[in-house]
Parts: sequence; C-alpha cells; structure tokens
Amino acid sequence: MPQTIAERLAQFSYDLSYEDIPPEVVEKTKRLILDTVGVCIGSTRIDFGVAALRLASRWGGAPESTLIGRRMKVPAQHAAFCNGVLGHGQDYDDTHTESVVHPSAALVPVALAVAERAGRSGRETLAALAGGMEATIRVAMPALNRFHLRGFHTTSVAATFGAALIAARLEGIGLARTVEAVGISGSFTSGLLECIPASAGAKRLHAGWAALCGIVAAQLAEGGYTGPATVFEGKLGVYNSFLRGETLDLSVVLDGLGREWEVLNVRPKLYPCCHYLQSFLDAAAALRREHRVRAEEVAKISCRVAAGAVNIVCEPWEKKVNPLTGYDARFSLPFAVALMLAKGKAGVAEFSEQSFADPLMRRLMSRVSYQVDPEYQVKDMPGWIEVTLDNGAKHVREIPEVRGNARNPVALEELLDKFYANTEFRGRAAGSRIAEEILAMEKLPEVHGFMGRLCEPEAAATAA
Amino acid sequence: MPQTIAERLAQFSYDLSYEDIPPEVVEKTKRLILDTVGVCIGSTRIDFGVAALRLASRWGGAPESTLIGRRMKVPAQHAAFCNGVLGHGQDYDDTHTESVVHPSAALVPVALAVAERAGRSGRETLAALAGGMEATIRVAMPALNRFHLRGFHTTSVAATFGAALIAARLEGIGLARTVEAVGISGSFTSGLLECIPASAGAKRLHAGWAALCGIVAAQLAEGGYTGPATVFEGKLGVYNSFLRGETLDLSVVLDGLGREWEVLNVRPKLYPCCHYLQSFLDAAAALRREHRVRAEEVAKISCRVAAGAVNIVCEPWEKKVNPLTGYDARFSLPFAVALMLAKGKAGVAEFSEQSFADPLMRRLMSRVSYQVDPEYQVKDMPGWIEVTLDNGAKHVREIPEVRGNARNPVALEELLDKFYANTEFRGRAAGSRIAEEILAMEKLPEVHGFMGRLCEPEAAATAA
Repeated sequence: MPQTIAERLAQFSYDLSYEDIPPEVVEKTKRLILDTVGVCIGSTRIDFGVAALRLASRWGGAPESTLIGRRMKVPAQHAAFCNGVLGHGQDYDDTHTESVVHPSAALVPVALAVAERAGRSGRETLAALAGGMEATIRVAMPALNRFHLRGFHTTSVAATFGAALIAARLEGIGLARTVEAVGISGSFTSGLLECIPASAGAKRLHAGWAALCGIVAAQLAEGGYTGPATVFEGKLGVYNSFLRGETLDLSVVLDGLGREWEVLNVRPKLYPCCHYLQSFLDAAAALRREHRVRAEEVAKISCRVAAGAVNIVCEPWEKKVNPLTGYDARFSLPFAVALMLAKGKAGVAEFSEQSFADPLMRRLMSRVSYQVDPEYQVKDMPGWIEVTLDNGAKHVREIPEVRGNARNPVALEELLDKFYANTEFRGRAAGSRIAEEILAMEKLPEVHGFMGRLCEPEAAATAA
Repeated sequence: MPQTIAERLAQFSYDLSYEDIPPEVVEKTKRLILDTVGVCIGSTRIDFGVAALRLASRWGGAPESTLIGRRMKVPAQHAAFCNGVLGHGQDYDDTHTESVVHPSAALVPVALAVAERAGRSGRETLAALAGGMEATIRVAMPALNRFHLRGFHTTSVAATFGAALIAARLEGIGLARTVEAVGISGSFTSGLLECIPASAGAKRLHAGWAALCGIVAAQLAEGGYTGPATVFEGKLGVYNSFLRGETLDLSVVLDGLGREWEVLNVRPKLYPCCHYLQSFLDAAAALRREHRVRAEEVAKISCRVAAGAVNIVCEPWEKKVNPLTGYDARFSLPFAVALMLAKGKAGVAEFSEQSFADPLMRRLMSRVSYQVDPEYQVKDMPGWIEVTLDNGAKHVREIPEVRGNARNPVALEELLDKFYANTEFRGRAAGSRIAEEILAMEKLPEVHGFMGRLCEPEAAATAA
C-alpha cells in the first residue's frame, strides 16, 4: 500500500538526523530561533503577553518547560502555548510567503518546550524543528492563500501538524505513534480569521494554540489514541474539508522532501506588522530616502496590492483608515504607508495608539487609496506606491518581492538589530548571551540551561 | 446597530435565570446530566478513558475541578476535557438529531467543572447548562448535517461556543466579555471526521476538546482577549468558512430563543453506538420479538438508510463489515443489525471485539445490504429492516423516528437502567446516591460535594 502524506511526513521528521541537514538549513533555523525568541521576549511586557502568562501561571501543573519571561515552569503544552502567543501576538514573526504560513512563532516554542521537558540536545532540537518547519510549510503549500480566502488561518491549520511532529520526535514516541499524532492533530487544527475584519485580538492566539494542540496530540498518541493516516488526502481530511471544492496539487507536499528545503524561504519581518505590509514599508522608506518625499507635501498616495492581500490589509477600508487599536494598525495598509512617510521609521513604538492622534498621520491615511494589481502574486508580497505631491510631481517605488528568502536575504546584522531592540529592556549583556547561545545551539548538550536564561532575571523583574 | 448572533446568544445565556426556565426543561436537563454522568463513570474503566485520565493527572495543576473516577482535582478545562472524553468516547451519549449535535457529552462536563471551581449552586449549574445546550443546538441547526458532509464534526464545532457561554456565565465574567469569549471560540473550534472512515479513535476526543476550548476561550476573554462579535455570520465567520458556498437559513438560530426549547428534543441513546444505528437496533429487536426471527434462519437483511448517514455508518462498506475495533463496530450498520439479531441485546459488553469472531455474527454481517431511501430525513434517524428467511419468508420492521424527544420520550426508568448498568461496578448504593442528587440538583447549595462523590472510592480503586 502506498504511504499516505502523513506517513511520509512522519518518516521524514522522525528519521531526520542533524548530520543530514544541509549547513545552510541549520544556519537558517538558528536565525529563525533567534528572531522568534527576541520577539517573544519583547512581547512579555505587552498586555496580551502578560495576560497569557498570567493564565498559564494560574493553571500551574507539572514543572516541565519554561515560560519565557517568567521564573516558572509549566506543562510543555502550556509553555509552548504562551511562548507561541508571545511570538505571534505582535505580528512581528516570520512568514513562508509561498504558503502564507508563519511557521516559527508556533514551532520554535514547541521545539524548545518539548526539548527542555525531554532533556534533548541542541542538535536534536534543531533537527526536530527543521523537520517540523519543513513539514508545516509543505502542508500549507498546495493551498497557496486559499485557506485565508476561505476564512481559515493557514498558520494554525498547518502548524498543528508540524507541532505534533516535533513533539513526537523529541518525546521519542516511535514512528508508528508519530503517524497517529499527525492524524489526531486533524481533530484539533483550527483558526478562523473573522477576528481580522472584526478588529478582535483572537488571532494573536493562533500560533500558540496550534503549538498546544500539536503537543497534546503527540501525548495522546503516546497514550494509545489513534488518528487517521489519511488525515490530509482523505475524503473527510484537511484538504477536502477546509478547502472543499478546490482543485489542489498535493504533489508539492512531498516533491523534493529532504532535498529541497522550503525552510530557506522563510522570511523574517523587519517591521512589526502583517507581512503584506513589509514591502510597502520598504517602498515608503525608499521614497523618503531616494526622492526626499516629505509627508507634509503629499497630496495623494496610490497603492497596488495583490488580490490575496485585500481581505487582510485593505478591507473593510473604513476600519483600515480608522484603526481602533495598535493591533488593528498592524493590518492596515493606509496606516503602514502613512506611518513610514510621516515618521521615517516603523518599530514597535510607532505601531501604537499614540500614532492615531497625530494630525499628519490622519491626513496621510485619508489620502491613501488602493487597487488590485492582477499581475501581483501573493507569494511575492510585493509593494507598489505612487505618491503625488501638492505641486503635482509623482514618484513611484515598487518592491517586487519582499526580502528575507534565500535569493534576497536579510543580513544577520539586521536580525540582530531587531533582536537587540526587542530585548533591550533586559540589557545588552543578557541579550548577547542569549543570541550567542542560539547561534551556536548545535553545541548545547541540552537546552535546559539555555531556557532558564530566557526568564526574567529576578532583579529586573522586581525593578520593572 | 442590530445585535449579532453571538451577542444575542450571550445575552440569552448570561441573563437566563433558573426561574425563567420551564419546569420540563429543568427536568430534561437533569436527566441529561444523569445519563451523561453514568456514561462517564462507565468509561473510567475503558482504555481510552484511562489514557485521558492518566494524561490529565500527569499535567497536574491548580486543584479546581474533579476528574470523574479519580481522587484528583485539576484545572477546570482539563477536568472538562477528560470528563468530556469519558462522556463521548463510547458513543453512548445523547443527540439532538435535528442538528446532529451531541450536546451533553461536551457541555455537562463544562457546567460541572466550572461550577465546582467557581462554587456555584445546583440551580446556577442547571441554568448555565440549559442555556449553553440550547445555544449549541441552535448554532448547529442551520447546517442540518452539512458540517458532517463537509468533514467537520458538528458536535465539536458547535459545542465550543456553548462551552464558552457556560464557562463565562458560571465564572461571572460579565456580558461584554461573554461575547468576546464566544468570538475567541471561533479561533479554537475544530473537529475533523476523517477518523471515522479511517477507523481511528480521535473522534472520542472531540467533545472533550470542545469543552476545553470553550473554557479556555472564556478565561482568555476574562483576561482581556477579544474575539469577533460577528464570529457566526461574518464574511470569514463559522458558517461562511466551514460551510462556504452553502445556502443557510440563519434565522433558525434565534427564532423562538427562550420560548421554544430545543433541549427538549435531545435524545438519549439506549445502545452504545452511533445514533444512526439506534432505530435499526430497535427494529431488529422488534423483528426478534414480534416475528420470532431466529438469526440462524436469516438469508438476507436489507436496510434502508437516510442519505446523510451513509458516510458515518455504511461507507466504506468493506470496513463496516470488517470492523477492526469495538469502536469501529459502533459505527457499523451491518454489525449493529447482526448483533441484535444474533444476541437479542446490544450493550457495552456486546459492542466489543469478542463479537467479531462469532461465526453467526460474521455470517449475518455478510448478508446485510443497504440502500438510501430518499424519503428518509437524517433528523428522524429512522431505521428500516427487511429480513428474508431461508424459507423465503420476509419480515419488515420500520422505526420511522428514533425515540427520546418530547413527542416520543424515553422513560426515566429506561434511563435509570442504563445509568445503573454503567455504574454497576461502583455498587448500587453509590449509584443511587449520585442519581438522587442529580435528579434533585436544584436543591444543592453548591455542586462541590456532589462532584467529590463522582470519584472512585478509595477502597474500590484499590480493589480494581
């Protein structure tokens, strides 16, 4: 009998040895951990992160895995949930744009939490994470952005399976039970996107919830529960249920598995907002830099967007030009473009309610319009802005493809700048130590001690 | 602005007072608790129940709510998860057939766990449960069985919202946050049915998982998280996402809310198997009783089924006539019909692997065939059997509508017989005391002490 997709992915993930992973994939994986952990640490001081940490602390339980930012260990799935919320909740986490999946925010916390619980080495952690990331991305690839168009969040739908693979491997539950874990994950996988047009914060929870679901699925499989090996291609499986009626090419899930690494195409973000906005921010920065556009002189701002981005960053337009919260602003094309033109930077501090009252921002937002460019593909996450000045001059800047993949990389220095900005409140020395450990993670005999250093230092916690 | 469905349901649930609930609804609610608790207790000795209890024990945590069958309290969402698994895992739990939802297995555990944690009274528990059940059923009603046809499990998809309503009310988080809790639930709601054709046990987890998801959603709302008030009717909401492309009449969700009680139409099961099989078992029992059909003389068994039941109990036919596990058997039309004809009873002991080897059972199963009757409606869950004997005689028995609703009730005595059969191993005195407390739950000043009595007695636990 030919193997199912779940069986092939389980075999790939379970049997993948650190030595078989190309060095550039290992390097990329470490950089994604670095970027994710930095965002997690930064989120520990923001209201949504504090709320998740408080809840996990209240639940308590077996002291297995570290809550980033708290001197407390909790059951692995709760640590991964919280850390996943911290990683995704700012929308500052990376994206595999060809599948529109945010793999690291969900899966880095799973790998770290389960490796800590199970006493695994840095190499085991890296191998499990690389395999689970690759599987998650590939599960999402046949859909392109069609999960999103249907109202489902690709990240949580796909990452639940990757989380199960990582947890199953790091717990060492055996290959057969790993397949069951993937099957059980189908019963838990979720993530509705109505929260975005409704300006609700529930999306912040999605990556963490996928992490929790996958870990529990692996634990249930270890305990004897079974799941369908046909969870992907089955008549009532993921693709036929979530994407009923769509024609999908499922061969992309397995083609080149283990030889071609999609992990290399995961793109870290340089601005804390939706990935669809990153190229617009680069374009707006270039307009300021290259054409010396001054915000006060702007009469009109036209944007061209990919069709698949409209539901996320353009509509309902009335809400996008009147964001209610800093989180809304992270999904607003007019806000992002106005922000960079007005302030010349777009960091965590700028994506906040404080920018709403700025008369210049309000004026700029009111002058933004958009149209769909049918040539644009979602996977490229392009940006195109034409600015018309009061004197009638026009300047156009296009970013045909967002940065961050193998062809068009982000430098380690840029990632480190972002990391240090996120961890600044903990002091440069603490941040440096964490960064160094992550960038040499293959040398850690176990990740336990490293995880302890992600907690708030007692003194700093008291001072805060 | 007109209220959304989530806002209306939240208001109904949050403001419902015990005194406003018709006495027959209170009585029905108590009987459903009785039936559910009996099934939960019975499941504590079955492998799937033991595995769930073991996992929740390992997680540990704040001692809030009782694990049925264990002398241990755990965080409320974990107690409700386990108890929900115990309630649903045998497929012995009730159904609202017009919506094909199994409300009690998910929601009775939520009401009991959160009421215990929050120190609520029997009346508060009954009111919260009745409201959450009613909301869950109504959320599922526009779909009829179309969630199932799409591959989604109506029970878990709908009950997550009811669980959030019950938890929000019993925790007293306020009406506004209750709406957020319902919205957040959309991000967690899940349940794929590929496990059924694949003979995997993951479906056993679905009601318990919905319970966990809804409780956590309420806790997150209490902690400040927000969800979309348009989670049902929104462009990316539940109906448009899970049932994209279907034409639904959403007015049935709210029409008559608070005046007409769908809870009255929830039908308890009298056999431990899929609800679609209940009428076939009644029909087969009647053939034995009324026509003295003897299994040894049966040459052919023809069944007529409703179209919506085919995916669940008929196909793939090859698997249905060769069930691999006792759990498979609970979703097999040929197994159920053969069982009643061969043995004259169909209890927990009969729905087991031991029946597979019986040559008479194998012979009978091989003689079953089915056809879809286009007149049959899923909501009636009818059964129709024609038996042809070796001598050429034919006998037909039809059960046009499964028992258990207001029009066609199951007697309290039958429910008590089932309850005592499920709890027999704990002794009749213990069972009687639990039954009496449930049937007078409105007199309990708090449910805490009652919950303690659902644990395994120390002595019996040692003896087992």
